[in-house]
This record gives sequence, structure tokens and C-alpha cells, in this order.
Amino acid sequence: MSQEIIQQCVETVKKVQERSPLVHSITNSVVTNTTANILLALGASPLMAHAVEELEEIVAISQALVINIGTLDKAQIESMRIAMAYALKSNIPTVLDPVGAGASQLRTQTSIQLIENGKPAVIRGNSSEILALAALQENTSRGVDANDSVDTAKEAAQFLAKKYSTVVSVSGEYDYITDGEKSASVHAKSANALPLDVIGKITGMGCSCTAITAACAAVQSNFFIAALTAMAIMKSVQVEACKNAKGPASLQIHILDNLYTLKPESISPYIIC
Amino acid sequence: MSQEIIQQCVETVKKVQERSPLVHSITNSVVTNTTANILLALGASPLMAHAVEELEEIVAISQALVINIGTLDKAQIESMRIAMAYALKSNIPTVLDPVGAGASQLRTQTSIQLIENGKPAVIRGNSSEILALAALQENTSRGVDANDSVDTAKEAAQFLAKKYSTVVSVSGEYDYITDGEKSASVHAKSANALPLDVIGKITGMGCSCTAITAACAAVQSNFFIAALTAMAIMKSVQVEACKNAKGPASLQIHILDNLYTLKPESISPYIIC
Amino acid sequence: MSQEIIQQCVETVKKVQERSPLVHSITNSVVTNTTANILLALGASPLMAHAVEELEEIVAISQALVINIGTLDKAQIESMRIAMAYALKSNIPTVLDPVGAGASQLRTQTSIQLIENGKPAVIRGNSSEILALAALQENTSRGVDANDSVDTAKEAAQFLAKKYSTVVSVSGEYDYITDGEKSASVHAKSANALPLDVIGKITGMGCSCTAITAACAAVQSNFFIAALTAMAIMKSVQVEACKNAKGPASLQIHILDNLYTLKPESISPYIIC
Repeated sequence: MSQEIIQQCVETVKKVQERSPLVHSITNSVVTNTTANILLALGASPLMAHAVEELEEIVAISQALVINIGTLDKAQIESMRIAMAYALKSNIPTVLDPVGAGASQLRTQTSIQLIENGKPAVIRGNSSEILALAALQENTSRGVDANDSVDTAKEAAQFLAKKYSTVVSVSGEYDYITDGEKSASVHAKSANALPLDVIGKITGMGCSCTAITAACAAVQSNFFIAALTAMAIMKSVQVEACKNAKGPASLQIHILDNLYTLKPESISPYIIC
Repeated sequence: MSQEIIQQCVETVKKVQERSPLVHSITNSVVTNTTANILLALGASPLMAHAVEELEEIVAISQALVINIGTLDKAQIESMRIAMAYALKSNIPTVLDPVGAGASQLRTQTSIQLIENGKPAVIRGNSSEILALAALQENTSRGVDANDSVDTAKEAAQFLAKKYSTVVSVSGEYDYITDGEKSASVHAKSANALPLDVIGKITGMGCSCTAITAACAAVQSNFFIAALTAMAIMKSVQVEACKNAKGPASLQIHILDNLYTLKPESISPYIIC
Repeated sequence: MSQEIIQQCVETVKKVQERSPLVHSITNSVVTNTTANILLALGASPLMAHAVEELEEIVAISQALVINIGTLDKAQIESMRIAMAYALKSNIPTVLDPVGAGASQLRTQTSIQLIENGKPAVIRGNSSEILALAALQENTSRGVDANDSVDTAKEAAQFLAKKYSTVVSVSGEYDYITDGEKSASVHAKSANALPLDVIGKITGMGCSCTAITAACAAVQSNFFIAALTAMAIMKSVQVEACKNAKGPASLQIHILDNLYTLKPESISPYIIC
């Protein structure tokens, strides 16, 4: 069972590299460039578009949709709502990143509305965001970074996955992926030149996981496998990058370079299921 | 003749480095940072501004205008229209990048309207975009990346250049520049440590060519020469960068570093005319 | 006296690293990514938000506010005005960067209005911008880069600091910080592999100083010390970075990596007071 899942993940990486799926993103202003470069290095094709006049056509040529609310406003929420509706109608998977859910009512409520109406294939966030969406405990968020451990968010992730018939992917000191029934996790191996917490010192690492999840969902209709694959890809390139980096900026360079030369099999050791 | 053109291109690089022209950009949200850094490394001065209240003053202090529709929307199109009108009135050259033309009607039609009213000095796009604008064949675009060869877009480029009395600069596996009568191309030399197709794995390379074209047009009123110079500059720094890079992210670092130390004469071997 | 000030600056760096203050930014589209990465590398937490519906909540969880008008428009000015009002009410320090003041009336007037109503703790700009705000001489700006020496802007800085009861921090060939009475400066030591003027070839270096100033003001209520500390931090990491960089892009990588490993004491040699 476990080996079968890992094999499916490896196959998913191969498919992304072979098919180069077109991933349409409506994302935050901090990570637009990073998102495009992550998708290109992975072997996918990025496309950014938010004008309501072109969303129907853009969604129609895309294989997946990224919705990331990191710097949301009224106009952007409307673009997101419309794009998700077109994607749903056309059976194109959406991956939603509820950045900062819990930090403001606007972020929490917008996320819930987009989930209820747009039915994302995967919700991908950090532990604080997932806890805020599940409202299983008082909101403790103090920004867009996670302040809660992944352990404390497992129950919330399962709850959300069941309630909305979706897959929930939680990033943190390790990554936890669940469809409400099955679950799996992604763990870093130890021994690195640079401590792994440097990864938290690069903006957009979570958003990059979201984009990679969308690229995987574009070629893998089992979204649990797609979400798991994405987190294992990122962990794999991050761990390798930590061996050669001297700080967060050189780390990011190595992550992108490593993504470009990623061997599908290299993700296997990071998956626990 | 050929040597004369190459010499004019070399002189154009020198003028950019000496005069540091102020280039005003209204561009897409993915490449704002890249565009500014490319212009600075080249020796030009970047300025980003889109508020309609300040466009008259900003255009008046600029030496060239970049219009890039990569993440267009209604408000931005209005800013672009107004900025191009001021630039035209003041005889300041505009370089238009019709990013994603063919991927949506909004992009194709906006490009055509901006060309008809704003009379850009240069239209700089990839082969798919140039084909879409010329409408010489059915739209085959599947996003913002080129899916057509430069060879198939030559006729379209000539058609557009004649129809709109402009210069058309097409990037791809080689670059093709035409004013409708004369034409020239830019080719990479072979032998590199890293295959040249890695260049396609960095976002904003085409947009960077557009910005460099504007910097050249700011100091060189022969826009055919300006456009040719820009593509040769980029090819030169890309080829050098490929010798030392390990993937797309380190490649981009090398491209910017090389641009900063560019010797004008180094562009000559890439120009064929 | 001088040693005491330097010691306070060193303590301020330590506090930023220990407390990881949450810094809310409403900034320009060119530097959103850079700003977030600078704050993370320094040890602070970045948050970008501009929707008026969430500003009260976002300001309430933040420890400092960055307002940067580099790509302002009507909607963004309104977000800035509201955020500064909430910050003022909650005693959260704002650092204002009047990018391009002098290049358009919109930029100059918006800056003055934000200063008068929002009472920033620190105004941080280049010499041309500070001169434009003080209106002590005719506007000579030709863009967003400084064209005036820091020497010529000292009087203007003192005038603004007194008039608005604030601290003014001017960057340039050296940095000058004044509260209208006291003043201090930050100077680079000589001997570098790469000339220091390469720093001017990276976009967002001034904006990064502004973000660091906000992080310091979040933990240091003596804003003169906070502003001085920030410029010394940046000078320190820039000088070190110049020893190993080959051009502007590798320089930026080194600056971020150095910021991550910054030792508080290393800023001392750059402060003159």
C-alpha cells in the first residue's frame, strides 16, 4: 500500500515534467515572480491573469488554477470567485491557499466562501490558517506565518477535508496531507549544512508549495496523491538546497536550480504513509 | 552594410551606458522587479508609475516608455492608453510587449488598439503573439509562452511592421527584427555548459528584452537598430551566463551580473544581417 | 555620548532578532518580494495587506507600519491614509518612504498629506526626495533615483524633522539621520572587491532600508536610534556583500544571506555621531 502510493507520486512528477501543464494563477503581489519561476523550473507553464473580461478564455486553456489570497482586495476576490466558478464548470482543479486566514475576518470569511462555492480540489495552508478555517479553536494567528504546530492542526485538517469533500495539505515542521480518511506526511531527513529553519526565512515557500500542488493536480486526478507529491517535491529540493546554501537568498537560488534538475525518484525518501 | 549596422548597434550600447536614459514602465505584476533590475544593470534608470494623475509629468521626464500587457485589466489599460498618448505627443518612443496576445480576445484586441492609437516605435513579442496580432493564421496560443517557431512568424512580423509603420522584434529559438523592408536576426553561438533552453525556464526573459529595447530606443532614433541592439545584448549576456549557471535561478543571477559588466563590442558576433 | 548611542543601536539589532516584530507594509509593486525577504532575513515577520476592510485588524496585530509610495494610485493612497490613521491611534510607529517625491505633484503632495495626517515616526528617503518635500530649492528630480548629494539635503532634513516632529533619514553616498536637533551619519569603510556604487544598481535598496527602519522602530521607541540602527545594518551587510559579489544580482544574494547571519556588534564601525 505504502509503496504503491509512493510509486504513484513518482509517476505524478514524471507526468508534470512530460506534459508541462498550463497553471493559471491569481495570487498575491509578493510572490507572483516566485510562483512563475517555481512552475517553470518544475517543468510546468505559468500564466497570470485576473481581468474578469478574459477569465473564461484563460481558464479554458488552463489545466489547473491557483487561488492565493495573500494580498486580497474586493476586486481580486471577485476575479477569484469568477475564475473558480469557470474552473468548477470545466472540471479544472483549483488549489486554494488561504494565506493569513485568521489574521483578519476578511481573509477567513473570503476563504470559506471560496471553498463553499468554488469547491477546490486541495486546500493548502499552514497550521494556523487551517485551524482558523476549521474554527476548532480560538484564532491565534499573528500574521501570515504559522504559529501553531502541525500536530495541533491535524484534526482541523481532517474536519475540513470531510466537510468540504476536499484534500487538505498542511505545511510546517513536517507536512500533513489528508482527504479526511487517508492521510500521509512528508518529513525532512536530518543532517544538513544549513539548518532547515532557514527555509522559513524565504518568502513564498508556502505559496510555492501551492503552485506545485496545482501543477500536480493538473496531471493527477487523485488529488490526495497530487498534494502529497507536491510537498515531497518541495521537501526534496529544499533538503538538497540546504547542503550548499549560506543563507536564505542563496537557498532560494539552489531550490529553483534543484527543481529544474529534479529526478522523480528522489522524492520517495520523504514520504511517510 | 552589415559591418555598418553592427557598428551602429555597438554605438547604441555605449550611448545607453553613458546617458543612463530614464525608462518609464507600465508592466505586468510578475516582472516589475526583474524589469527594474535589468534596466539598472544595463546602466539605464527605471521608473514605474501608473496613476493617471501623474502620467503627464512622468512621461515628460522619461526618455522611453515600456507598455507590457502581461497582467492587464481595465484600469491598467486606461493608464497604458493615456501614457502612450502623452509619449506620442512628446515624441518619446514606446515599446509594446503584447504578452499573451492570442490567449484571450482582451489581450489581442487591447494590443491592436494600443498599436493603432499609440503608434509604438517597436512591437516586441514571441512568435505566437506576433502571429496572433497579424491574424495571418488561426490562433494557436496556449498561454503566454511561444508555441510557434520564429520561422513561421517572419511573414507576420513583416506584415505588422508595414501595416503600422513600426519595427517588429520576434524572440524565440533565434530573434528576428524587421521594419517591413530590412531585416536582421540574432543567433546564439553553440557550445555552452548549460543548454540554452534553460533560458525559457526563467520568467520575464522576453519582458526583459522589451525593457532593454526601450532603453536602446531612448538613445537611438533608428528603432530598427535599437531593437536589434537589444536582442543582441540579451543574447550575449545569456550565452555567457549559460557557461557558469547550474539551473534557471543561478542563470538569472549571471545574466544580471553580466549585463552590469557588458562590453559593447561583445554583442557583435550574435548579429546576422 | 557617542559610545552610548552606538551601544543603543547594537541593542536595537538584538531586540529585532529576539522579538521578530510583525511589520505591516503597504508598498510599491516593484519591491514587495524584496521587502518581505529583507524583513525575514533580518529576523522580523513581514505582512502585506491593503484591503480597507481588513486594515484595522491587520494594524492591530502589527508592531510597525511601512508606507512606501513608489507605485501609488488613488486606491492605494486611501489604504495608506487609513492604515496610518489606525497606526497613529494605536501608537504603532509608521515609517514613510516618499519614493519619487519631486518627480510628480501627486507624489510630493501625497507625501506631505500622509506626513501631516499620519505623523510618521520616521521619513526615510533619498536626498532628492527630502529636498522636494522640504521645498527648500526647486525640484530637480528626474525619477526615483537621487540626483542630489546628501550634503545638500542636510538642511532640508533638519527642517522637515523640526516641522513635523519626526526623524528624517537620508540615504546616499553616506546616510544622514536627524531628529532636528541631534544628527548622526553612517559611512562605508573603503577597500572592497566590488565598488560600492554597484549597490545603486539593485532596485529596492532604499525601500529595504525603509523596511529595516520599521523593524527597528517596532522594538526601539527612540526613533532616532531606530533609524540610525537601520542604516548601519544595511551598510554593514552591503560592505560585506561587496567583498564577494560579481555584479548587482549576486550582490543582492549576499546582502540577504549576510543579513541572516548579522552579528549586532558588526554595525558599530559604520556609525559616526
